[in-house]
This record gives sequence, structure tokens and C-alpha cells, in this order.
Amino acid sequence: MNPSPLQHAHGVFPIAPTPFLDDGSIDFASIDRLSEFYLHSGSTGVTVLGQLGEAPKLDAAESLAVAERFIRAFGRMPVVVGVTAPGFAAMRTLAREAMALGAAGVMIAPPNTLRTDDQIAGYYAQAAQAIGADVPFVIQDYPLTFSVQMTPAVIRRIVEENAACVMLKHEDWPGLEKISALRAFERDGAMRHVSILCGNGGLFLDFECERGADGAMTGYAFPDMLCDVVRLQRAKARDAAHELFDAHLPLLRYEQQPGVGLAVRKHVLQRRGLIASSAQRAPKAALTPTARAEVEYLLARLARHDARAAL
Amino acid sequence: MNPSPLQHAHGVFPIAPTPFLDDGSIDFASIDRLSEFYLHSGSTGVTVLGQLGEAPKLDAAESLAVAERFIRAFGRMPVVVGVTAPGFAAMRTLAREAMALGAAGVMIAPPNTLRTDDQIAGYYAQAAQAIGADVPFVIQDYPLTFSVQMTPAVIRRIVEENAACVMLKHEDWPGLEKISALRAFERDGAMRHVSILCGNGGLFLDFECERGADGAMTGYAFPDMLCDVVRLQRAKARDAAHELFDAHLPLLRYEQQPGVGLAVRKHVLQRRGLIASSAQRAPKAALTPTARAEVEYLLARLARHDARAAL
Amino acid sequence: MNPSPLQHAHGVFPIAPTPFLDDGSIDFASIDRLSEFYLHSGSTGVTVLGQLGEAPKLDAAESLAVAERFIRAFGRMPVVVGVTAPGFAAMRTLAREAMALGAAGVMIAPPNTLRTDDQIAGYYAQAAQAIGADVPFVIQDYPLTFSVQMTPAVIRRIVEENAACVMLKHEDWPGLEKISALRAFERDGAMRHVSILCGNGGLFLDFECERGADGAMTGYAFPDMLCDVVRLQRAKARDAAHELFDAHLPLLRYEQQPGVGLAVRKHVLQRRGLIASSAQRAPKAALTPTARAEVEYLLARLARHDARAAL
Amino acid sequence: MNPSPLQHAHGVFPIAPTPFLDDGSIDFASIDRLSEFYLHSGSTGVTVLGQLGEAPKLDAAESLAVAERFIRAFGRMPVVVGVTAPGFAAMRTLAREAMALGAAGVMIAPPNTLRTDDQIAGYYAQAAQAIGADVPFVIQDYPLTFSVQMTPAVIRRIVEENAACVMLKHEDWPGLEKISALRAFERDGAMRHVSILCGNGGLFLDFECERGADGAMTGYAFPDMLCDVVRLQRAKARDAAHELFDAHLPLLRYEQQPGVGLAVRKHVLQRRGLIASSAQRAPKAALTPTARAEVEYLLARLARHDARAAL
Repeated sequence: MNPSPLQHAHGVFPIAPTPFLDDGSIDFASIDRLSEFYLHSGSTGVTVLGQLGEAPKLDAAESLAVAERFIRAFGRMPVVVGVTAPGFAAMRTLAREAMALGAAGVMIAPPNTLRTDDQIAGYYAQAAQAIGADVPFVIQDYPLTFSVQMTPAVIRRIVEENAACVMLKHEDWPGLEKISALRAFERDGAMRHVSILCGNGGLFLDFECERGADGAMTGYAFPDMLCDVVRLQRAKARDAAHELFDAHLPLLRYEQQPGVGLAVRKHVLQRRGLIASSAQRAPKAALTPTARAEVEYLLARLARHDARAAL
Repeated sequence: MNPSPLQHAHGVFPIAPTPFLDDGSIDFASIDRLSEFYLHSGSTGVTVLGQLGEAPKLDAAESLAVAERFIRAFGRMPVVVGVTAPGFAAMRTLAREAMALGAAGVMIAPPNTLRTDDQIAGYYAQAAQAIGADVPFVIQDYPLTFSVQMTPAVIRRIVEENAACVMLKHEDWPGLEKISALRAFERDGAMRHVSILCGNGGLFLDFECERGADGAMTGYAFPDMLCDVVRLQRAKARDAAHELFDAHLPLLRYEQQPGVGLAVRKHVLQRRGLIASSAQRAPKAALTPTARAEVEYLLARLARHDARAAL
Repeated sequence: MNPSPLQHAHGVFPIAPTPFLDDGSIDFASIDRLSEFYLHSGSTGVTVLGQLGEAPKLDAAESLAVAERFIRAFGRMPVVVGVTAPGFAAMRTLAREAMALGAAGVMIAPPNTLRTDDQIAGYYAQAAQAIGADVPFVIQDYPLTFSVQMTPAVIRRIVEENAACVMLKHEDWPGLEKISALRAFERDGAMRHVSILCGNGGLFLDFECERGADGAMTGYAFPDMLCDVVRLQRAKARDAAHELFDAHLPLLRYEQQPGVGLAVRKHVLQRRGLIASSAQRAPKAALTPTARAEVEYLLARLARHDARAAL
Repeated sequence: MNPSPLQHAHGVFPIAPTPFLDDGSIDFASIDRLSEFYLHSGSTGVTVLGQLGEAPKLDAAESLAVAERFIRAFGRMPVVVGVTAPGFAAMRTLAREAMALGAAGVMIAPPNTLRTDDQIAGYYAQAAQAIGADVPFVIQDYPLTFSVQMTPAVIRRIVEENAACVMLKHEDWPGLEKISALRAFERDGAMRHVSILCGNGGLFLDFECERGADGAMTGYAFPDMLCDVVRLQRAKARDAAHELFDAHLPLLRYEQQPGVGLAVRKHVLQRRGLIASSAQRAPKAALTPTARAEVEYLLARLARHDARAAL
């Protein structure tokens, strides 16, 4: 296959939420608004149908419709489509349909029952075969949520055994040494290059860029800030990058709470006018009035450092 | 809704494997043959698209086609359709389509991330709401595979909170006291009646019937033996029931191995002429020649006690 | 028994690391120095032999020696001793010996195999019986590390069923709503008062105090800052509390990484002159030179806001 | 060090329960009676302080006293002492004390938090270093209880990296192919010889011997039957071995239930007159009257085939 642009990606691919209207139906107009915002804020791509995107809450037809709308809205910018599924048949169906619509590649998280190195590498080999050798794919390495622990050596093995593997979504925690280890493999000629975009809500983005990551792929509600941090780091403006990052850290940390984090994000995105409703489909965790007030307090404090937060 | 026949079911509902041809496509002719065999061997229902049925390896359209074929072949006998899914949208879609085709009800296993009593009860309440109040459902309680531990009190809570819950597929291990506890709730008026059919390969079926279970719902390759054991137990022929059961136990235990068990079952079903091929879809565990020889040895030993095993 | 001072504790109980010399032997002199520092920085108690204190790496005699030294150094201030053990016999032995030495109470974390509400409540009932009704105990609720999920209702049940339960070490994540739920139980008369001190490295201490927590019990290497934040919150100086907290958040977050966090903490404590060596016993995660440099960078940035970090 | 007799062990090492009197104190007289029975029934060794032996329910002094009594009673027959512990200091202390008393070696199970191949191999390397290079050790590979999955390649790595590793207690499930894989490594010169004794209650002992295992290390209450089966298999009397094994399988399976299994075993051992009381320490699962009656029924059925069961 032709070289995938994902293999040398950098910058920020926001993980897009799936916007719903209050009645639970998909809000396509908000998809367009969100996409436009991502593009104008300097994003270099987008990832849809991720965990944050409530992908498991959509049925097959809805998944495809959401992917299609984002792909159309993003034009020539790369769209990564999450195709994680309990089996390879459903994964293949969605992957091939998404690619036919113009996706740049797909993202695959491992099932949470995998334990040994061989099981993990074997799973990705089977997945790659299932979706087809012409479909570029992204490894999602997120042990906190998926309970699967991939060592740097296992990631190298997946990369080396599967030509279609083009990117790592890195969200191990702790994870800084893992980035250094993977980049050392590459320097030593022990592993070909894949791009590394970091998740985990961006909680360590300040140092991840310095360790060799190419940017972020995460759902923080100020992706424009993430873009600026990555840009500053690439420009070697270290102190300025940390200054901006640190101002956001209190809110970013608040958003990065498991379970309730999505509610915080949708709330902030709605407050920013980027989606019409903060509705989620079940199962969901709602924000209490106290939590909403805490978010407001964090936004107000942030606004002293970053005008974007003056809502 | 009308009373569901599942609520007072008894006897044996085999968990049907999904037969594939050697090229991985669905073998509908074998579905018909298998269905005919189940009906003639005394089964009182059947369950399709279970874990054993490789349900996660089918895409949405295939799942529906398999369910439809079994439903057509079973005529007026009840067919339970597994609708376990990572999200409620896909669960609802399959459940409603299956019911429209004539299914008697659906079976739902919990996601392996549930821990607390509230999480488990909450999950079933949301699932019941998602599929609709008119769809009878079966709880699948299988901690060995799903890592979710439901106490008798939690099962009672699900039953009491959801009128559409009509049956428990019981495969906790150990599980005998759980059956006794649930039947004691019922005797004490603390819980309405639901049928209890036992899984776990039938490993404790001899005693489960004596504890108050209504029969079996499992995939052992001699469902005809399971039917006889349940019939003997209902006729209070205890020694005869155990005698028959014990003769099968060495093979039954061999089949009940996690992972490789499905390969053993499909192999035995093929040896019995009930499916055309023992092919599985990936991921799969194959039988080595040594394992095949062990199965042959077990079948030969079994044939001394039960002519059905003289293949 | 007499009322335990732990039941109405507030302020900060640092989780003390166990200092080792470079040869792996226990560094008792550093225990004294650390204790003196804790006392002078405003701590209202201390917790020893916790997870952070490398408790499982000590044998029975060493555990007792460490507890004794801290107890002697702390004088009349309360010392909580971690007695988490794989069985009740060892737990009882250490608990009773520690109390005889003058400990104020013990802390018990659940084994990571507990799942159902009944299992968790049953475990604490058995533990309480094992150590004796006269030993005040602290529940450690840390699902991220121990994989046990306690709902507010389960915690209430433990408190109500065990008179000797006097404190909750709260480190669920997310956890803010849990504090609010427990304090609501108390306001409604549904649960007697126990103190709540928060762990999790202090990552949400800014809001935890506002939610009703009494303070912190955690190992962040600037417990003096934690004391100030709790004091400011008690004095209703909200903005000042957040201002101070936010300045520390980049380092605090860095320390809160699982696995490597202890290495960061011991390094910072050594840099502050509070322990002689940052040595750990195996198994351990070491700091790479890059990580050390990152810590230095964070300390330097912090020093602009807080003179304590000017090392 | 001198070659360990464990490396070439064969036959049956019963896993000894720890007998308690009804008041929970250790019943040393029953240790002597049990030991005598084991010796006279053909056991070639014994394992004490295992999971079945309620090891975590003893404190350090009691553990040593139990080990000492068994070692004295067994004379020159090898005694393996379980030293699994949450940390290396306690493990080392018990291991060295047990060896000083005359133990033949120690058994180490992995903590249930290990996931990756490197974590598992690293753990055994650290444990081997902690106990000392002169202490022969046994790997306990029991994923059903410990949740740690060791591939054949990982076991080979532990064996090759640690000269003191002399035996595998094999209780993976399914596990037949694993034995074949390990013996194939040995035949190919890829791994030195270690003995393999099988656990899992003996549930697959009939075939395990045929696959290359050297015998059993498990707690089934008729270890004399296990000895006979292993002897028959070594004498190539395959049918006779299976005939005897199959007669015991209904009871053996009943005993092999997690949690309640120990209660069944102690009950049967008491019925056989080998221990004075079936008492366990907390936490424990008791036998209901119904369960007791089921065991009696199984014993009565077994007695038709094996006079040992005529109690």
C-alpha cells in the first residue's frame, strides 16, 4: 500500500466526542461545528468513535453515519476511526466501510482479557489480517482502561510484524520512559518509525513532547491549548509551553477523572458553544450541581491566564 | 406482556455452536441438521449466539441470519438469542430484530468490568430498558468467564426490579448453594419464580437438579445424555441419573476446559455427524493430534457404558 | 473502649516512607529526622507501614521496629500503623504489638480479590474481630491500587457494623462525589461520624476539603504545603488555598505516577535533606537521569511560587 | 549447590492441609497422623504451607512450627514448604528458616498483579535472589487462583535464568498442551529438566502423566488413589489407571470447587480418621448439611469401586 500520512503525523488529533441531542439522537450539526473548530484551532487530524466518543453506545449504522459526517467535514485532513469490537467480523466490516468513506486509518484497542506478550501480539496480527493489509492502523495502549499491559518490546513486535501499523496512541501511565524506550529502539535501528500521539487527557503532554512524542490524541476540552503546547515544544520554547500547560493543569486533571470525565468535557464543550447539548447515552455519569460549580471555578481561575477560558 | 414460556421452562436448552464451513462461511445446512437432532433428542428449547456459539465473531447481519435459521428450524419450540454486546444500541437492535423473527427471549451477560452490587443491578436495569419491556430476558451468571460475581441477593434484585427477567442461566462455580439460596428466597416469598437452567458444561448437573434447577443450558456434545439425566432426576431415579452422568463425566470434564473446549465440542459433534466441519473462526484454539487421540480414547471408554458414544 | 482521637482527626497525616540506607538496611536516624520535620511542618499525625512505606518489603521484626521508632519520635501525636496482611493471624499479631507500643490505630486495606458488597463488608468484620474490638482502625479505600470498589453504602455498612472503625482513608478516583455522599449520610443521621483523610497523592485535595474531607493522608514530598492548603481551606481562604495548590500541581501530578512515584518522592525528600538516601528495596522502579532532570525542572518552576522548593 | 532431589522427583507430593482443633489452634497430633498416612500410602514427598494449607492464616511463628513438625515426621522424605509472601523480606526469612530445619525446597507463587512476561520472569529472579542461591524452589503456576498467565516460554526463561529452580507445580487449566510443550523444549535441548507435578485437584491427572508429568502435587482427600494412578501409568497400565481415576472423578470434581473445596477435603479427611477436626480458620466456607449429604452419597457410590471409600 501507499505510505500512510499517519505514520509521520504530528500535532494534535482531538478525540472527538459524539454529540447527542437531548433525546439521545445524534446531533450532526454539532459534528460540523466541532469539526470546523478543530480545523481552525490547528488540529492536524481527528479521531472519532473512540472510547470518549461513546462508540460502544452506537449501533453499526450509527457508527458509520458519525464517521462519514466527520470525514466529510474534515476534507483532506486525516480522520482515524475507532473500530475496536468484541470480534473480528464486526471490526472488519466497520474498518472497510470507514476506509471506503475516506478514513485515513483505524484505531484498535485490545480486549481486556489479554495477558501474555504472545496473546497481545497474536491479537494484533489477527486483527490486522481481519481488516486487510491495506488498512493503516493505530495501536491504542491504554492500560488504565483496558487492563492490558504492553511492554515496549511488545509494541515493537506489533510494529515489526504488521506493516500496516502506523501509529501508537500512547496512554500508558506512567508512560514517559516508554516513549523514551520506543524512540531508543528507533534510533538503534531496532524498530521502524511510527508516530506517537499521547492520550491520557494530556496529563503529561508537557514532558511527552520532550521525550519524543509527536503530539496529542486526546479529548481535553481545550484542544486549541494542546495545539499551542505542541507547537511551542516543537519551537523549543520550553518554558512557554510549560507555562501554558500548567495554567490548564487544574482543569485538565479535573477532566481526566475516569467515568465522570466525559460529562465534564461535554459540559465544557457546550459552555464553549461547540456542541448543542452535553447529553450522553446510557450508561453515563452525570455532573452534580457541586461538580458544575467546581468546573466554573476552575474556568474562572483559568481565564486569568488564558482568554479562551473566559466563557 | 403475556407470560413468557421461558419463566417456567425445564429440561435442556442446548447452547448451539455456530457451524462454519472450512472457509469460515456459515454452514446453514448444519444448523438445520443440528436443530433436528436437538429436537429429536428431547431438548425443550435452544440457545443460539452464546459465547460457545462464537457470537462475537459474527457481524450484525450474520448474527441475525444465524438466529433466523435456528428459529425457523425450531418451529414452536423456544429459541433464546444471545444479545450480549459492548453497548445498549447494538444490544437493542439485535434483540428487537430477533424477537420480530420469533425468538422466545434474549440472553444478556454482564460486561467484565462490573464490580459492585449496584453496578450489576444498574446494568441489567439499563439493559432491560434498552431492549424494551416486552422482551423476556435471561441473566447469564458465569463468573469464571465474565469475572462478574453476582450474589443470590443481587440476582433477586434483578428479578424483582425487572418484570421481563424470566430465567437464570446459572454457571457460577461453585454454584450448588446458590441454587439452594435462590429457591429458598422463592419458598419464602422473597422472590418470584424464574426458571434456572445450568451451564458450566454440565459439570455439576447431577446435583444441580437435586438442588432445584430446572435443567441444563450448556454445550456438551451429548445433549441427549443431558436430557436423559434431567428426565431421570425429575422421575426421582437418582441412582440411574448419577450412573449415566458419571459415565460421561470424564469426557464432559475434558470438554469443559476453557479455550480449547469449543474445539473438543465441535470435533465430537462432527464425529457424531451433526455438523459438517469443526472449523472455527479466529481467535481459536485448535486440537493437537494428541488431544484428538485423547478424545477418541474417552469416547471409546464411554461407548462401553453408552451406545451413543460408539462412533 | 475510650473514644479514639482518630475519629475526629483533621489536618494532615503524612504517609511516611520507610528510609533505607544504600545497603538496604533501615535508616532509623532518618526516621527521626523525618518525624521531626513532620511535627514542625504542622502535621497532626502520621501513618507508617503503608503501601508507600514499602511495608510488604519488611519482615515481621522490621515492621515492628519501624513502627516503634516512629511512635517514639511522635510522642503524643497519633501514629497509624498499616497492618494489611494476606491473613488475619499476621494482621492480629502486628496490630496488637503496635498498639502495645502506643499506636493510635491501624489501617487495613482489602485484598484485591474482593468483589461483592458482602465480601467487602464481611472482610472488614472478620478483620475487626481478628485484631480485637479495642483496636481503632482505618479503612483504606484505594481502588486504583487494590482493585476493590467500595460504594458509599458499603463504607457506611462497615462503619455501622464495626464500632472500632474510626476513619476513612479516601483515595477512590474519581472520589469527590463519594465524600459528598458520605457526609450526606452523616447529616441525615444514617451514619455516625468518622474522619475522612484523603490520599491519591493529594491530586484533588483542593476540592476534597470543600466537599467535607478533614484533610490529607498521603505521601507528597511537600506535606508542609498540604498542611497549609488544609489550614487555608479551614480558614475559608479558598482562593489562597487553590493558588498554593495549583503551584504544586505539576510536581504533585508527576509524583502521583504509579510505580515510579515512590522513587520521585524519595528523591525529593532526599533533595530536601529529610532522608539520607533515596534507596528502595526490591521490587523497585528507579529514576532515569531524564526523569531526575524533569523533577529538577519542576522544582525550579515551583520555587518561583513557593520558597520551600528552592533546594 | 548439590543437586536437589526435587529436580528428578516423581510420584505424589500431597498438599497437606494444616489441621486445626475446634478452637482454631494448630493440631500437631493430626500432623503426625497425616504424615504417617502419607508415607504409608506411597507418597514420595509432601508440600506444606500451600494455599490449601491455609498458609496465609498462620503468623510467622506458627508457619515455622507447622513446617518443622511435618519435616520431623517425614524424616528423610522431601518436604516442600510454601513461602509465598507479599514481599521478599518475609519470604526470605521463612525460606531460610525452613531450609535450616531440613526442608528440601520452597514453593513460590506469583503475586496476582503480574501481567507481562518480563514482570513474571523478573519476579522470580528477584525472589530467587532474595531467598539465596542455595535454596531449591518450585514454581507454582496456578492461573485460576493467582490470575497470572505463564506461557511455556516464560517458564523456560525462569528455569534457564535460575539454577535453583527445580520443579514446576503445574496447575494451569487447560494445561495438557503446556506439559507437552515443556517436555518438547527439553527434548530439543532448549530447556534443562525440571520435574513437573500437577495440581488442580488432580482433575486431569489421568492424561497429565501420559503427557510427561512426573506425578501429582495436590490435596485430593484420597492421595493413596493418586499414588496408584501414577504408579499404574508408570507401569504402562493405561486402562487400569483410567478405570481407577474415573471411579474417583465424581468426588474429585466435587472437591475441586473453589472456596468450598477445602471444607470438603477436611471433611473427607476427618471421615477417613486422618485429622481430628475439619475446623478451618477464617475466612472459611462451611459445608451445609445438603453438601455433606452429597459428599456421603459420592463416597457411597465410590465405595462400590474402591474399598478405601467404605467409611
